[in-house]
Order: sequence, then structure tokens, then C-alpha cells
Amino acid sequence: MVPPKAIIIASGSELLAGLHTDTNTQFLAQSLRRIGIGVVRTLIVGDAYNDLVDTFSYALDRAQVVVVSGGLGPTVDDLTREALSEATGIEMVESPYALAEIRERFRSLNREMSENNRRQALVPVSGMYFSNPNGTAPGLVFDAGERLAIALPGPPREMRPMVENYVIPFLEQRYPGLPRESSVMVRFVGSGESDIDQILREKVPFDPRIRVSLLARLGLVDLTLYCPTSEKEDLNLLEESRNRVLEVLGDYAYATELVDLSEVVGLQLRKRGETLATAESCTGGLIGASITAIPGSSRYYLGGFVTYSNESKVSQLGVRPETLERHGAVSEQTAREMAVGGVKALNAVWCVAVTGIAGPDGGTPEKPVGTVWIGVASPKQNWSLVRRCQFFGDREAIRERTRITALDEIRKALKKVAL
Amino acid sequence: MVPPKAIIIASGSELLAGLHTDTNTQFLAQSLRRIGIGVVRTLIVGDAYNDLVDTFSYALDRAQVVVVSGGLGPTVDDLTREALSEATGIEMVESPYALAEIRERFRSLNREMSENNRRQALVPVSGMYFSNPNGTAPGLVFDAGERLAIALPGPPREMRPMVENYVIPFLEQRYPGLPRESSVMVRFVGSGESDIDQILREKVPFDPRIRVSLLARLGLVDLTLYCPTSEKEDLNLLEESRNRVLEVLGDYAYATELVDLSEVVGLQLRKRGETLATAESCTGGLIGASITAIPGSSRYYLGGFVTYSNESKVSQLGVRPETLERHGAVSEQTAREMAVGGVKALNAVWCVAVTGIAGPDGGTPEKPVGTVWIGVASPKQNWSLVRRCQFFGDREAIRERTRITALDEIRKALKKVAL
Repeated sequence: MVPPKAIIIASGSELLAGLHTDTNTQFLAQSLRRIGIGVVRTLIVGDAYNDLVDTFSYALDRAQVVVVSGGLGPTVDDLTREALSEATGIEMVESPYALAEIRERFRSLNREMSENNRRQALVPVSGMYFSNPNGTAPGLVFDAGERLAIALPGPPREMRPMVENYVIPFLEQRYPGLPRESSVMVRFVGSGESDIDQILREKVPFDPRIRVSLLARLGLVDLTLYCPTSEKEDLNLLEESRNRVLEVLGDYAYATELVDLSEVVGLQLRKRGETLATAESCTGGLIGASITAIPGSSRYYLGGFVTYSNESKVSQLGVRPETLERHGAVSEQTAREMAVGGVKALNAVWCVAVTGIAGPDGGTPEKPVGTVWIGVASPKQNWSLVRRCQFFGDREAIRERTRITALDEIRKALKKVAL
Repeated sequence: MVPPKAIIIASGSELLAGLHTDTNTQFLAQSLRRIGIGVVRTLIVGDAYNDLVDTFSYALDRAQVVVVSGGLGPTVDDLTREALSEATGIEMVESPYALAEIRERFRSLNREMSENNRRQALVPVSGMYFSNPNGTAPGLVFDAGERLAIALPGPPREMRPMVENYVIPFLEQRYPGLPRESSVMVRFVGSGESDIDQILREKVPFDPRIRVSLLARLGLVDLTLYCPTSEKEDLNLLEESRNRVLEVLGDYAYATELVDLSEVVGLQLRKRGETLATAESCTGGLIGASITAIPGSSRYYLGGFVTYSNESKVSQLGVRPETLERHGAVSEQTAREMAVGGVKALNAVWCVAVTGIAGPDGGTPEKPVGTVWIGVASPKQNWSLVRRCQFFGDREAIRERTRITALDEIRKALKKVAL
């Protein structure tokens, strides 16, 4: 079977105006791709009826599967149903089953169902509908044989479970045996995209069957390798290629699946039965926030200090006033004393400390904006490292790079220090 | 003059696959709208030549201004130039001026210009090009009289300045005197979207000239009112309407422009010459991080504590062990002692403290996941408030709602306590 092509459409004038960000399309593209359906276009269109019909017709001319999100609400602006009916030539009838589900939904919320909501019980005469346990609008399939148009509710918390529970199984049944792309991933920290790219080009000549994607964001780089099928040959090829990448660039690799750096560090600490504290100046709590974003982090994270003022560095972490006076708050000595002070104050095994100039003001010729000192201390493990970094970008970028590099320094320390 | 309509297209197979997020389109939509050009569709299309020509032709059939981002690089995948030339019927020639600029760009980077890059000097015979000081690909205008197609480089740091410096002034000259939409905004915290919507419907009947947009995200709601022109009558109407909204819902309004809640709180503290400390448990540093995201926050923010463990609540904030034992870490008493302890430890005027159960585990029937206590203390201002909240959603949502509500409690305290 020739794999069908898909076009994804988001409807909503708010989206067109650039007020809301459309996140549905990306989710739908990834979901379809996972079952072997490639997306050839995506569109955003406003609420006007003629624009909707025009757009749906355009899409149905060019793809076998058209997926639309939004415009299924009960108001006069919600015209996706009617426009899809016109574009496909498939009429709609009120479904007593869909209507009963909508009534039940209102009952469970203790709300009155308005007459407007009756429109949401209209379903295509050729096709089907998907129940919506998270809202009132059911999903709709207009089934024109060789072409399918699928309408989904706009709110992500309604749309996403509907896609996972109904749309994907439905499409898998409709298009059985599609070749499914396979992939492996390596996540890097501590080396730039262009360095990784160059090293890969020189040392890891990938098989031509493999498609390579390299995505970089603020100090993190994701390498994903794709093969066209999920057959054994392709899976082996990907596995071998990933191993070769890890041989060459293993020092910078922190994960081979979609987990965060803070989760990787947490997992290591948990395995080792060790505890961590944080002492943050320029990041203001970002490092602690990202560590505690992981459920269960209380097992290894004791807590931290946001020592934004010199006084708090002295009173909370025991940094010596002479150190601040002689070397300044942004210095090797201060970073070291902060890390050691954090260990002592919370009786932790490890502490990571950061102090720097996030800008836009506060830079000097010797310590320009982006100068950051990162210290990691563990008296118990006889570990002490302080490192100067020079980051670029705006305040947000500098703080985020500091956070990532601090987590990476803990990761590297845990790797080097055997239990 | 009838205002022209625009269609925005992003080209790139990575975008279609859902790997990269396209941020260019939203930026372009907002930029065009600001000068009175409405966007009627946006599309994403892959790198295949036929798909590009098809998409560009579709767009040129439906809009006077077509803006394309991406596909101007030097590689064989970069076909936007050629496809636009075919779709518009306008040929291209090598521009010696564009070529000289590209050569100069390479020289300044100490890099060799490859033969491939010569393609980037191709410009439409009818139209013009825009210099690109941040990259090698110039922007292009294919000028077919009643229709314009504008091609821009894909990287945002090249595209955005080009739009601001060249594209917008060019379009303003091309379409003089377009009516420009005007708008006013009110940002709310502490009340839900549906409550605000209902109160507005009941108490603020907006003039039919006004278009109302209500956007909600995790405890924050933005109301924007639009009028079709920027003439005095419309500006007055918007001003009056905003004042009426503030009369009715002023308690929940934290800003009338695009500033963050943490910035509003910071500005108040700065005006009052007062200082703030934070004591965070379940948010793990999020509150401190958002306060310090604002440049200059060191003038009022002294620092904070992330007291994730019971021990750290005792040793850092002076919470009494009996309090933890009798009432638990997530309790009114603990929140109060944390806030008071934070004030003392950093000698601050104000301290906000949060302690709660962010989940997914750790909930009990009496204290389910989402139970959060927020305390604000200022012995100096004779202020003490502790409040129980019940938040819903996943761990991230609960933490984010806690952060926002904590900042809002400081905002409200500062409003109530006169200096």
C-alpha cells in the first residue's frame, strides 16, 4: 500500500492573529508520523465559512487524510463541521447517541445544556464520531472512501487523549501495515552543535539509509537518527550507529531517550544514595526549580539557597566577607566558598554553586556580562571543582546556560567519582 | 484603499515533521497586523520543489502579500527562490551588489565563500532585495504589481531584524494610509477566565465596534480589546472601556501592558524601598527564579531558601520541629513559620513562603495532591496572612499556579499596606 499523505489544519482567528500559539499541529504531525503517515502541509485558517471550505477543499485535493483541530464549539463562530460537510459532500444528521453523551457530560458538570450545544451532536452520514470524555464536542470522521477528513476539538486537553485513544487506533486499522519509521536518540550537553556535527562527519560516516537530525537549544544538542522502517535490519543499523556515536562522543552524552538532564542527575544520586544541595546567585532558583520538577526529587535533594545579596552569601553560606571584598561576588573563591558552605549548611554530600553576571547591566572589562563561576564541592567524596564560563546571549539565555552547565558539572563529577 | 490580505508560509521539512517549532509565522503575523495587513492563512510546506510551487501559487491566488520564511540557504534543499520565481513568473538574475555583500560577509567571518553561495546573489528582475547583516541570504521581493511575494531567511535572528528594518517600512510605503487596528489590554490574576467572562458580560457591555479577546493560561488571564482603526474616536472608546473594566474587576488586574506579574511586584517593592525574601518548598526555587528574571531585581530581592526537606525548614528557617510533627510540613502553621523565618534570616521587610503537595504522589484524603499553603509575612508592616489553596493539574501546573498565586499574594499585600 502506498502510504497516505496527511494535511493538518488548525482553525481559529485567534491563531491567525498570532495571539495564541498553535501546539496542536506539531502534536498531530508527530502522532501521524509515528504510524507511518507523512504530513505534506499544515495550515492555519480563520473562522470565516468560505475560508474554511476553500482550505478544506485544497487539503482534500492534495492528501488522503485531512485532520482539522478547532471550530467544533457550540457558538456561531464554530463552523468546522458545516464547512467539512460542504467540502467533502457528506451530509450530517443528529446522532441520538452523540446527543446522549453530550447531555450526560452537562449533567456530570451540573450544568444546563443549551440549545446551541445540540449542534455538537451532528455527525456525518458517512463516517463516525469519537466520544469526548473531556469536553462536549465529539470528534468527527467524514469518510469519503479514498479520502478522510477528521475534525477534532481545539483544546489540547480534549484533542490529545482523543488522538491517542481513538484517532490513531482508527487510522492504524484503516491503513494496516504501513512502514513505520524507526529512530534512536542521543542527547548531548557541554559541546556545541557545530562541533558535534563536525566530529560526526569526520568519525561516524552514517549509512545512507539513515536520516540525521541535529537540534540545538541553549547548550543542549539532540541527535536523532531515523530509518525508513522498523524492520530488524533497520533497527540493527540504528543500534550500531548509536553505539558508534557513543564511542566517539560519549563524554558529552547524557541520555539516549527523552529525559531531562536534571532527571539524569537525580537518577544517579538516587542510585548512589547521595544527597544534593544548591547555592544559587545569578540563576535565582532556576537550578533548584529544575531539580524539583522531577517527581521523587525529595529523596536526594535537600534544598538550596538563593543568595542574591552579599549579606545572604555571608549569613547563609558562610562566605567570608574578606573573600567578597578582595575577589568580588563573581569569582572563583566565592563560588568555592558557596559550594562548601552549602554542603555544610544542609549536611549534604554534594553542593553545586553558581555566581555570575546575567546582565544586561553589571558587566566590567574584566568580568563582562555572561561571566559565570560554577563550583561543585563534596568534602565527603574529596571533590572540589570550580570553573569559569563565558556565556553569550540575553539575560534569559545566560541564566539557562548557567543552569544547564551547573547540572552538567554534577553529572560529570558523579561519573568520575566512584562510590 | 482596500487593505491587502497576507498569507504567511514557512518552508522546511523539519518543521513539517514536528521536529522544530516554527516561531517565524507568529512573529510575521503580529508584525503585519500592526501595520494593518491581516493574515488570512498560514502554511507550512516541505522542501520538495513541486510542493513549494503549488503552495506559493495557492497563496498568490488568495492574497496580495505572500511572505515566505526559510529555504534561502545555499544547499540543494533550498528551493524557495526558484519556486517563487516559477509561481510568480518573474525571472532572476545575479546581482553584482548582492554578490559583493555576500562576499564581504564571508570575508568578515574569515571564511571561504563556496560556489554554492553564489545562488544567494540571485534576485528577481522585477522586485528588489534586502541586505542581511546577520547572515548570507538576502531577502527578496518578487513584485508582480498587484501581488507581492517576499522571501525571508529562516533563522529568526536573521529574519526578525530584516522584517523590522526593511520589510515593514517597505510595506508601509507600498500601502500608505492603511487603517491600523488599535488595542488596550488588562492582565488579570486570581480569577478564572469564565468568571471574568461572565462578569464582563453582565457589567461591561462593550460597544459593537470592539472585538474582545480573552486568553487564559494557568491562573493568568489576558483581556485585549481591539478597535478597527487608530483614530481618536476608537482610541477614546478603548480607553473608556478599559477604565470601565478596571472599575469592575480592578482587584484582579495587575497590569495594563505586557509586563509579568513578577515585574509588577518588583516595581512596587522598588518604589517602596522595601525588600523581599522567599521560602519555597514545593516550588523548589521557581518563585525566586521568576523574581530574578527581571533585570535589577537585586535592588529589592535579598534571596531565598529552598527548604525541600524537613531538616532544612528547621535549620534554615527556624520552623519548630513540634510544628512539623503536629501539623505536618504542608500546613498553615508551617507556612506561617517559614514566612516569619525567612524575614528574620535575611532581615527582609517581606517574605513569601509556600509549602504544598505537587504530586503525582504524596497526597492523602485530608491533603490531596494540589494542596498548597501560601504565607506572606512582614513583622515590620504588621502583616501576616496564610491561605490554603487547592490547585488542579499535573505537577508542573500545580507548581506554576503556586508560583503565580504566591506572587499575587505579595502584590495584594503591597496594595493593602500603605507605606
